[in-house]
Amino acid sequence: MLTCRIHAKEDLRIEPAEDPQIGPGQVLIRLGAGGICGSDLHMYEGRTAAEPGIVFGHENMGIVQEVGPGVVSIHQGDRVVMPFNVACGFCKNCLAGNTAFCLTVNPGFAGGAYGYVAMGPYRGGQAEYLRVPFADFNCLKLPPGQEHEDDFVLLADIFPTGYHGCELAEVSVGESVAVYGAGPVGLMAAYSALLRGAKKVFVVDRVPERLAKAGEIGAVPIDFSAADPVEQIKEQTGGEGTDKGVDAVGYQAKTGSGEGEEPAMVLNSLVETVRATGMIGVPGLYVPSDPGGVNEAAKHGMLLVEVGRFFEKGQRMGMGQANVKRYNMKLRDMIIEGRATPSFVVSHDLPLGQAPDAYNKFDKRIDGYTKVILKPAA
Amino acid sequence: MLTCRIHAKEDLRIEPAEDPQIGPGQVLIRLGAGGICGSDLHMYEGRTAAEPGIVFGHENMGIVQEVGPGVVSIHQGDRVVMPFNVACGFCKNCLAGNTAFCLTVNPGFAGGAYGYVAMGPYRGGQAEYLRVPFADFNCLKLPPGQEHEDDFVLLADIFPTGYHGCELAEVSVGESVAVYGAGPVGLMAAYSALLRGAKKVFVVDRVPERLAKAGEIGAVPIDFSAADPVEQIKEQTGGEGTDKGVDAVGYQAKTGSGEGEEPAMVLNSLVETVRATGMIGVPGLYVPSDPGGVNEAAKHGMLLVEVGRFFEKGQRMGMGQANVKRYNMKLRDMIIEGRATPSFVVSHDLPLGQAPDAYNKFDKRIDGYTKVILKPAA
Amino acid sequence: MLTCRIHAKEDLRIEPAEDPQIGPGQVLIRLGAGGICGSDLHMYEGRTAAEPGIVFGHENMGIVQEVGPGVVSIHQGDRVVMPFNVACGFCKNCLAGNTAFCLTVNPGFAGGAYGYVAMGPYRGGQAEYLRVPFADFNCLKLPPGQEHEDDFVLLADIFPTGYHGCELAEVSVGESVAVYGAGPVGLMAAYSALLRGAKKVFVVDRVPERLAKAGEIGAVPIDFSAADPVEQIKEQTGGEGTDKGVDAVGYQAKTGSGEGEEPAMVLNSLVETVRATGMIGVPGLYVPSDPGGVNEAAKHGMLLVEVGRFFEKGQRMGMGQANVKRYNMKLRDMIIEGRATPSFVVSHDLPLGQAPDAYNKFDKRIDGYTKVILKPAA
Amino acid sequence: MLTCRIHAKEDLRIEPAEDPQIGPGQVLIRLGAGGICGSDLHMYEGRTAAEPGIVFGHENMGIVQEVGPGVVSIHQGDRVVMPFNVACGFCKNCLAGNTAFCLTVNPGFAGGAYGYVAMGPYRGGQAEYLRVPFADFNCLKLPPGQEHEDDFVLLADIFPTGYHGCELAEVSVGESVAVYGAGPVGLMAAYSALLRGAKKVFVVDRVPERLAKAGEIGAVPIDFSAADPVEQIKEQTGGEGTDKGVDAVGYQAKTGSGEGEEPAMVLNSLVETVRATGMIGVPGLYVPSDPGGVNEAAKHGMLLVEVGRFFEKGQRMGMGQANVKRYNMKLRDMIIEGRATPSFVVSHDLPLGQAPDAYNKFDKRIDGYTKVILKPAA
Repeated sequence: MLTCRIHAKEDLRIEPAEDPQIGPGQVLIRLGAGGICGSDLHMYEGRTAAEPGIVFGHENMGIVQEVGPGVVSIHQGDRVVMPFNVACGFCKNCLAGNTAFCLTVNPGFAGGAYGYVAMGPYRGGQAEYLRVPFADFNCLKLPPGQEHEDDFVLLADIFPTGYHGCELAEVSVGESVAVYGAGPVGLMAAYSALLRGAKKVFVVDRVPERLAKAGEIGAVPIDFSAADPVEQIKEQTGGEGTDKGVDAVGYQAKTGSGEGEEPAMVLNSLVETVRATGMIGVPGLYVPSDPGGVNEAAKHGMLLVEVGRFFEKGQRMGMGQANVKRYNMKLRDMIIEGRATPSFVVSHDLPLGQAPDAYNKFDKRIDGYTKVILKPAA
Repeated sequence: MLTCRIHAKEDLRIEPAEDPQIGPGQVLIRLGAGGICGSDLHMYEGRTAAEPGIVFGHENMGIVQEVGPGVVSIHQGDRVVMPFNVACGFCKNCLAGNTAFCLTVNPGFAGGAYGYVAMGPYRGGQAEYLRVPFADFNCLKLPPGQEHEDDFVLLADIFPTGYHGCELAEVSVGESVAVYGAGPVGLMAAYSALLRGAKKVFVVDRVPERLAKAGEIGAVPIDFSAADPVEQIKEQTGGEGTDKGVDAVGYQAKTGSGEGEEPAMVLNSLVETVRATGMIGVPGLYVPSDPGGVNEAAKHGMLLVEVGRFFEKGQRMGMGQANVKRYNMKLRDMIIEGRATPSFVVSHDLPLGQAPDAYNKFDKRIDGYTKVILKPAA
Repeated sequence: MLTCRIHAKEDLRIEPAEDPQIGPGQVLIRLGAGGICGSDLHMYEGRTAAEPGIVFGHENMGIVQEVGPGVVSIHQGDRVVMPFNVACGFCKNCLAGNTAFCLTVNPGFAGGAYGYVAMGPYRGGQAEYLRVPFADFNCLKLPPGQEHEDDFVLLADIFPTGYHGCELAEVSVGESVAVYGAGPVGLMAAYSALLRGAKKVFVVDRVPERLAKAGEIGAVPIDFSAADPVEQIKEQTGGEGTDKGVDAVGYQAKTGSGEGEEPAMVLNSLVETVRATGMIGVPGLYVPSDPGGVNEAAKHGMLLVEVGRFFEKGQRMGMGQANVKRYNMKLRDMIIEGRATPSFVVSHDLPLGQAPDAYNKFDKRIDGYTKVILKPAA
Repeated sequence: MLTCRIHAKEDLRIEPAEDPQIGPGQVLIRLGAGGICGSDLHMYEGRTAAEPGIVFGHENMGIVQEVGPGVVSIHQGDRVVMPFNVACGFCKNCLAGNTAFCLTVNPGFAGGAYGYVAMGPYRGGQAEYLRVPFADFNCLKLPPGQEHEDDFVLLADIFPTGYHGCELAEVSVGESVAVYGAGPVGLMAAYSALLRGAKKVFVVDRVPERLAKAGEIGAVPIDFSAADPVEQIKEQTGGEGTDKGVDAVGYQAKTGSGEGEEPAMVLNSLVETVRATGMIGVPGLYVPSDPGGVNEAAKHGMLLVEVGRFFEKGQRMGMGQANVKRYNMKLRDMIIEGRATPSFVVSHDLPLGQAPDAYNKFDKRIDGYTKVILKPAA
């Protein structure tokens, strides 16, 4: 089969590899579609400890090709999409629905994923085939056919990840929400907030195209390069601030001018934006070790947070990778019933062979590359 | 009536004052018992913006002396205890049970209290009489008589405050909990965790007497001056850490040697102590403005927090003053039925006249002054 | 002032009455709009113990005319809508958000209401003026002006009541829901389910106009006079049944032919319609004493329920009057932001003087009288 | 191996059988202990459709003897206890924690179990060996050794089943609870309520030994043969009734005289006992088909329920088999830490060979046979 491997910083190549072997409880997927994720760029840019030869790809969808013994609910020919997190389904964390923190699949660490540094031995899906362990648990069945291809592939990561931000913030009917970041995850968070019945959703960014997308789905765009976003939002909420907030940016937050990095900027803005007793959900990535951190503390994931204000306002905050498995079935059903169409964020559908070029353009944010779906079978 | 006023740093005096006048919806209480709280010491030590003449006292219990028109459920002669937070009962936050963040009683700020700087115009209860606004909402009725006097007075603040730590951390049956701080609030948090069915509760402190009290109620004492508390707790939880954590220390956290202050030490220790997907409740005080902060950031309530690890572990955290009203009825009933006896933390019962001396000793932590109850009528 | 009193079965008259006097904590409302509710018809038809002279009207909206001492948040000239349930805001049930079961306002019974038999001494609002007790708690402020008049008046009862059905059934994103009954409450329940992100909502009725309305808001109409509704819904859910169900019919359920009454028919149909582990919310009325019951047991509110199946399927069920106060603020905000427009159920806006005629037509279900709003000031 | 089979009504025999074969994902257990459950008596008495030859036993504990391919977390020699419900861990219901309603293990029905009629092809454990499917999901590991043998075996069914009653009723700190039935499940429900921090637990029964046990664990015994239990409980709760209720009796409820059966008696008593807005959890069995029902309706599981009162009081109710897997880990940990010792309900420990005699005595309630643990290896 063909895979897309990275050999050195920014050096991605399409090359042959052996087909994966499958064992009991596993299935082999012939990949039909897979997303390139913003988090892949961290590895691509050489800002992680990823080893040469790693195969990328944690947003995976395709057709079941082969089924190992002991798998009971998945059959050859099934169309399936997999959560980016690999999980066992029976450890303490999986039982509690915290499948992003599985204690089985990546010994010594809570959580595993396909094609990602330090997330266990799971080869990624930017390739022709993918091996899926604990297949009964990790495969989500889709209706046969080709319909909703670009909607369903987003069930692997960004739709549930945006939704997870709302879940952590417990967004519910009649609430106002501020989402920082209008990249794919931020838009999915805003979209999820509206699905959950939020009365008003603000989306903060500085890129006009992204803000325009936010407006199209019914959110209120806030351009933070024009004026302090906290003030803009307070003005539109009678001075109160929002009930809830979502950080879909993470530690690489850029300042308003777009030049410097200010890793805790979004967190602290949210503490100010969200009203007393409000909740903040953080699906945007923060890391405990960042070689490129702006200062010594930041290199160790330690940031200056407005703890005093957070306490004074009696807020709550939840962080971390999305438990995709907890949400993907209901979100799939929303797509099937026509109640959700997340594919509005997809900018490009490309064959696997164009992956190296797509990474390059996505990394440089040129030609409108915001969300690329690779189609290995195309 | 007599009140206990502060005139300058450490200058407290018992002196006459006019009886409070009551309006519609209010009652006048003849005070029977009231606690001195650790948070009173911040004002006593001159580390706040409190003005000379303030009357302290937010832990108030007594007998209803006079009832204003419009009060329907409280009658003369009723024995009542009041939450330290003054609340209206009908604003958006009170309706949601967040009575510590009432939007009515202290305009321009979310939350009011008796006898505390910046918490509104409510004279404190270290006096003979107290005026209680919104009396139907703010008075909790107690059984007539004198029984459980030292248990019930703790319903004004520290028992609900400790319980609030468990509520924020969602402590439930079969969970392990780490409580940092074995002062009155920490002990109440540990006690509450056990009432909620925790399987094992660790209490971290360095004072032998406090650790001994923790042991007496069935918790496991952890002396952090002897060794790293995180390691000690991991060792006793099979390397896993605890399910939940409570910070009952706050920003004036002392290092293991007891000399320096390290304001984020407890927060960061909790991030390490609590396992992935765990929750952390913080009733311990953090302030947005601290003239005595250890550095420029700390003076503005900004602390270096292990955000990277917090994200990696997918934890959640809630902070803030306790919504006493949400818990005081059920905790009162636990006392009445003999299922809870929180008075084990009370060290001294003294007449009001001894308040100045008691403050002095409590502030210096001498003679075992840990929790003083003033008895104005004694 | 003018009021609409009932003197004997079906004998309603508009006649003068004294203006209500207000006391501390109360306000006087000059009524602007008020709904006639299906539950008013029980009294109109003489099937209750209502005494001659009662003034109807529990769906009340208007302008504050006079403010009693002690009221702090409501002012003369405020436009307000009141929950149909009168509540104190400080009893055990109100504190838990169960304002429909207030222990203060109707001694000896849990719950009070305006203008309803056995619900306390609160004169109804089909009149020019209304006295509102515990005004800070019972008045919901609206934006000044005349906008959304027919949406806001529905906040007094049927919009929150429909929403309550979804709350009892814990309807959430991605779920399927079966609502029995497409009267005003059933339509509000279906509408609420969609606001909460349900993937598919079925509405069961036999009246073509009602079913058409259900279709217009995006629900799937099920005509139970055409075929067994359970089978129809199972067919459209892959044989599984729905995740949740709402009974918006109650004890006066008519059989498919429309002739007989079968009081437990809807409950038992829901047990069959909803899948194993599903939940059922019942805002539709059941009464403990019904002089017109179909048999001796029914006269005492005892019905033959499929308990065996309910257990086998591991379902849960919640019943009762809506706690309007718990929902009216968020639903008001959804209206203000243009995210909800419940007035699509209103069939007629009429001046108070036409009340007798409107009752008559509504009772006979002629001329499309389904939801009448009386406008006393018109 | 030896098994205990039933051949005809009341005809149980110990006889040889083939050892079970295990496949991928399965393990073979050498049984160490197993309970006889009250629900086994339904089959023993011939009041079910059980076929001759069935092997009983759904409360199973033992040592892993053999491990199938694909099992990753369970190893030979592990000491394990299994939930009575067989579950897959990955279907829609298992993912939601509703493992008693697994959609995989018993096609066409929601839920499977060992050794029970109509619950799937899973041979029971009143034998020397047991085959466990989906072993990673269905085995709960215990500490090695022999400690707590009689506590741990109760994790298979009755301890979680009693706890489930409290979970359905959402029993929490400071609440009062009425448990009907002081058999093993009722005692476990009362015990669980106390573990969850209930302030006061009433246990209703008529057998003096059972009531005495209830008193020993700190509950208040209520003898319903002496006087109306509703009145007795109201008297002890200031006329209010309890916050919550648990039905641990089910459809074979006996009247106060102990002579007749009145299948809805306990349900209706709970509606009266529990206060307005309270919740009722029903782990006690109700069946949709009962050949021995007291009347035609009862034969089909249809009972006369006080629906009118249930609505008027705004109560909620949940029923069904316990999702043992949701609770067994936390309850195991409570046993390990010494915070729970449920074995106080065990009356007899007997070798497998005495099963026929034990059934006979248990069925006739003679010699104090209330909870028998069979020890196949003894």
